[in-house]
Amino acid sequence: MQAIDRITTGTGSKRRSPLRAIVFRALETAQAGDRLSLVVDVLLVSLIVLTVAAVVLESVPSFAARYGDELFLFEVITVSVFSVEYLLRAWSCIERERGDGSLRDAFGRRLRYLTSFHAIVDLLAILPFFLMQAGLFGNADMRFLRAVRLLRVLKLTRYSPALNMLVTAIVENGRSLAAAFFILLTVMLLAASGIYYFERDAQPVDFGSIPAAMWWAFSTLTTVGYGDVTPVTTGGKVFGAAITVVGLGMVALPTGIIASGFAAQLKMRSARFEESARRAWDDGVLSETEKQELERYRKSLGLGRETASQILDAGKVQRMLEAERAGRCPTCGR
Amino acid sequence: MQAIDRITTGTGSKRRSPLRAIVFRALETAQAGDRLSLVVDVLLVSLIVLTVAAVVLESVPSFAARYGDELFLFEVITVSVFSVEYLLRAWSCIERERGDGSLRDAFGRRLRYLTSFHAIVDLLAILPFFLMQAGLFGNADMRFLRAVRLLRVLKLTRYSPALNMLVTAIVENGRSLAAAFFILLTVMLLAASGIYYFERDAQPVDFGSIPAAMWWAFSTLTTVGYGDVTPVTTGGKVFGAAITVVGLGMVALPTGIIASGFAAQLKMRSARFEESARRAWDDGVLSETEKQELERYRKSLGLGRETASQILDAGKVQRMLEAERAGRCPTCGR
Amino acid sequence: MQAIDRITTGTGSKRRSPLRAIVFRALETAQAGDRLSLVVDVLLVSLIVLTVAAVVLESVPSFAARYGDELFLFEVITVSVFSVEYLLRAWSCIERERGDGSLRDAFGRRLRYLTSFHAIVDLLAILPFFLMQAGLFGNADMRFLRAVRLLRVLKLTRYSPALNMLVTAIVENGRSLAAAFFILLTVMLLAASGIYYFERDAQPVDFGSIPAAMWWAFSTLTTVGYGDVTPVTTGGKVFGAAITVVGLGMVALPTGIIASGFAAQLKMRSARFEESARRAWDDGVLSETEKQELERYRKSLGLGRETASQILDAGKVQRMLEAERAGRCPTCGR
Amino acid sequence: MQAIDRITTGTGSKRRSPLRAIVFRALETAQAGDRLSLVVDVLLVSLIVLTVAAVVLESVPSFAARYGDELFLFEVITVSVFSVEYLLRAWSCIERERGDGSLRDAFGRRLRYLTSFHAIVDLLAILPFFLMQAGLFGNADMRFLRAVRLLRVLKLTRYSPALNMLVTAIVENGRSLAAAFFILLTVMLLAASGIYYFERDAQPVDFGSIPAAMWWAFSTLTTVGYGDVTPVTTGGKVFGAAITVVGLGMVALPTGIIASGFAAQLKMRSARFEESARRAWDDGVLSETEKQELERYRKSLGLGRETASQILDAGKVQRMLEAERAGRCPTCGR
Repeated sequence: MQAIDRITTGTGSKRRSPLRAIVFRALETAQAGDRLSLVVDVLLVSLIVLTVAAVVLESVPSFAARYGDELFLFEVITVSVFSVEYLLRAWSCIERERGDGSLRDAFGRRLRYLTSFHAIVDLLAILPFFLMQAGLFGNADMRFLRAVRLLRVLKLTRYSPALNMLVTAIVENGRSLAAAFFILLTVMLLAASGIYYFERDAQPVDFGSIPAAMWWAFSTLTTVGYGDVTPVTTGGKVFGAAITVVGLGMVALPTGIIASGFAAQLKMRSARFEESARRAWDDGVLSETEKQELERYRKSLGLGRETASQILDAGKVQRMLEAERAGRCPTCGR
Repeated sequence: MQAIDRITTGTGSKRRSPLRAIVFRALETAQAGDRLSLVVDVLLVSLIVLTVAAVVLESVPSFAARYGDELFLFEVITVSVFSVEYLLRAWSCIERERGDGSLRDAFGRRLRYLTSFHAIVDLLAILPFFLMQAGLFGNADMRFLRAVRLLRVLKLTRYSPALNMLVTAIVENGRSLAAAFFILLTVMLLAASGIYYFERDAQPVDFGSIPAAMWWAFSTLTTVGYGDVTPVTTGGKVFGAAITVVGLGMVALPTGIIASGFAAQLKMRSARFEESARRAWDDGVLSETEKQELERYRKSLGLGRETASQILDAGKVQRMLEAERAGRCPTCGR
Repeated sequence: MQAIDRITTGTGSKRRSPLRAIVFRALETAQAGDRLSLVVDVLLVSLIVLTVAAVVLESVPSFAARYGDELFLFEVITVSVFSVEYLLRAWSCIERERGDGSLRDAFGRRLRYLTSFHAIVDLLAILPFFLMQAGLFGNADMRFLRAVRLLRVLKLTRYSPALNMLVTAIVENGRSLAAAFFILLTVMLLAASGIYYFERDAQPVDFGSIPAAMWWAFSTLTTVGYGDVTPVTTGGKVFGAAITVVGLGMVALPTGIIASGFAAQLKMRSARFEESARRAWDDGVLSETEKQELERYRKSLGLGRETASQILDAGKVQRMLEAERAGRCPTCGR
Repeated sequence: MQAIDRITTGTGSKRRSPLRAIVFRALETAQAGDRLSLVVDVLLVSLIVLTVAAVVLESVPSFAARYGDELFLFEVITVSVFSVEYLLRAWSCIERERGDGSLRDAFGRRLRYLTSFHAIVDLLAILPFFLMQAGLFGNADMRFLRAVRLLRVLKLTRYSPALNMLVTAIVENGRSLAAAFFILLTVMLLAASGIYYFERDAQPVDFGSIPAAMWWAFSTLTTVGYGDVTPVTTGGKVFGAAITVVGLGMVALPTGIIASGFAAQLKMRSARFEESARRAWDDGVLSETEKQELERYRKSLGLGRETASQILDAGKVQRMLEAERAGRCPTCGR
């Protein structure tokens, strides 16, 4: 089942540098029954959560004043662990696919990994610390670098296949979402200049210029509606009411795009799963191994349990129909 | 039609302990034409609604002061009824499926029932009362226990098949929704630290720390937009406006997931219904019994009337086509 | 094409009481090229819009004081017109389908019409006036009756097939929407009692009881977020933030249901249109009459232009394929 | 592949007036590898963005006072460029399709272009300037004309195929969206008169008449919820809470329509792409040219990469299946 092979990475890795292979499998997201990898995952995930919590708490003056040293110590520990992780991943990454063993090939794949999203996130998780230690930054930058440390939360993206499905759905419809965003900006511009036209005299501070009026336009078109600034003139209120209605459309567009894009994703993945299911049913029976493989594949596709079982049953039913009807077409009845 | 058998529970139960079977059928959601069961349902549902209303009103000081005794009396009645219901359900639950009659088997199925969602909800509906009478709780806990009594509203979940469809759609996409939630949290973190970066000096109380800024971040990203705290600096407003737009995406993600998940559910259930419809049409006619069975099945699937009739007609049309074309395949025209 | 016949009502009506038939056709929503009916429609629609505007303006004290007499005069005119319309519709309604001519049959169909949604709306449009003239109501009721007159806007529902599609999509998923509403109420109850638990001491007025807290719960869970009352305690804010997130789900549920329900409607109607298109293509050509019939049918189904033409082209392509492949199945290539 | 030919405009244009053809291609959205056209696009897009920014900044009093002359100079430059663009487009537009060369034909096509959306937008981009110079307008109109200049942002619509997809999805469901809008207006009317009924005495200013109450009704039903005016009476709050819930439906309707409409668009375009893919696969191989053509077509359809490749693979798989099964139908297994 190539469909499934595609996702069971490193299966053949036993035949390569054992240690590196072990490290690779340990750092990989745990497959069913891989205890070592599972432990590593749990440790790393907890550390990520803790360090993010630390960064957040550090921004509380009282807390920072009281536990400054502990926070710094914990930061040092975190960074060292993440640094080791980073180096090990950079070293073992080439275990992912079997190469021709040549140095050139290995280097190329390392480079590809190091420029991948996950690798850059890992780098961003440790870089700020060293830069701050280097102390070539003013206080303002310090704040900024501290904020950057929050990006460590992105390290968690490694551990969710469903997230990947979501991201794909978004990326796939990137152009449409961009178009929706363009529409939003255009409408926002017209809304801002319109309300400016009506309210400028009544509220010279909040609506004294188009840029000023944009704050109202954004909060209205996104249906956030803070209400810190609202039109007061009759004309402004009539125009404003019209804009609130337009806001419904601004909510509808991205939602509609994501919804249909997500449905498409679901359909695509169901089709892939069905393909594998059909192959598994080819011999008329569903062996225990096949079941496990399909289950693992289902997870990796982020499909729901019922959906999957539905597909499997459908496959089974078809088998039976075909059998019972002695090769007669389920469509045309012969 | 096994598809339909699957949902007409207790059909064969006449052959078992008659009283227990009657109790079981009475407590079950009423099937068409089962008067006793219907009466019991109506009584229980009304009692649930009334008791929830009582808990709510009890929180109104003036009302509680005036009708304290009546409320307590009603509470006693409610709890006794629910207790009896709980015991009867625990006793009759094994009527659901026919077992091998062995004690071990009966015990196992009772245990399974008692640990089911509905049974736990039923327990939560009565437990607080006894705990409060036992009086081993301080005043604070009393309040909490009173709140717990509101969970009695969950007892109503027993009576809606559509609700079950909704819940399935949510559970099926649990991983995706979790991923969307993760994205929300991540964005919220970055939004909070960003606005903290811009507003901390201007509004040291509301934006003096990242945790403080989270209140604004949540109310903005969910497009609730209370407006009790809003950015005042230019930088903060520009950043805030960007976040309101991101908020649109935060609304779009779960909505899109639910929408496509719900559509999938609908498709799945329509397919199941179609299967039964095809079987019903197999003999070329649709008898009154078949109609009733299909109608009951339709309800249990939570399908709309028109959808169902559409499916039925389609089945009929196909029958006719096949007939008229003398077994020619509607796909390939022979 | 029975599919189309189903919607060209009264085609055979020439063979019946001519005057009544003419009245019927005049009051019916105008078919293409029916000038009289079109004029009547335009007049009635404008009158409805004007009278609703009048009711709204009447609520403006200054306006009412100044144009009281004119408003009353206009009201009298409106009511008389609507009364005549009501009577004529009640008289001519039996033209819709050909009956067996018996009095019993005519009476039965009249009764069915008079209890239909549209007829009741028409009645509500005139009843308040007569009731007010009868003057058996206090001032408070007067106000109420005036509000009832706003329901005249519902008379417009007669003129939009798309609206009908929307309503069907809502009705079809009525049970699911009810379930979503039940979930909303449950969550609202728990949110209200939760925030009451946290804020009751800090804000005894706004959160002093669960009913009082419901105002906040509703405005938060629906993501309206007035911000007139918001939690101030840390515990309340944390709980409140969680509720804002839950609010996203409350928005997602109905939207998801409507979206998938609407998609189902679209599919259903496309299928119906496709059926008619296939029949129209049966003879290999698409005559001008067929085109017009299909166009009218498309409108009555509320389908978009591109969707329809897409379906037509598909039908055409298939014809050509079948022709060119000399009866070979487009699926299996022979 | 006519499907693809349909979008590769001007392919045969070499055979016509060379200069005009070059101008046309230069002004057209750049096809892959058309450097001149690309440069022109980039220049025009940047100019549009800059001029819109200028209009916005001009509304800032301090900025306008300081850079008045520069802004005017830039305006002159912009208008001249846009005027030249307008004339060149009007001149070269007839290159789009090959005509019969007759003057009548050329004139007809020019007229068609000049009355097209894009041409009118281009005109609106330059007209205000000349009108202002003509100075036959009061100050108020000046403001208005300045606002009109913001419409220049619409010139960008020329450069996004995805936008076109979005607009189609909206237009296709125009009637449904209109119906949803009608529902919104109706509910708004009833909400406004209802809240007016409850709050008129408590808040005579904000709810003293139905028109006044509409401001609240709009901001609530669109879930914007400014909170500048909110009900204070118990009756008003209960009614208001109900309206917030109804607001969820008002959000759900347009979103659901757009979502399903967008899904339909996606399906339609996927079908078109599949058609081309099938033709490309007809000969069993996918040549480099075919790949490029398909890629260009994919972009013009605004389809995502994965979706497209999925379709292509499907086509390939089918080819292989057909081959391997020696012309056996994948449906009926022979």
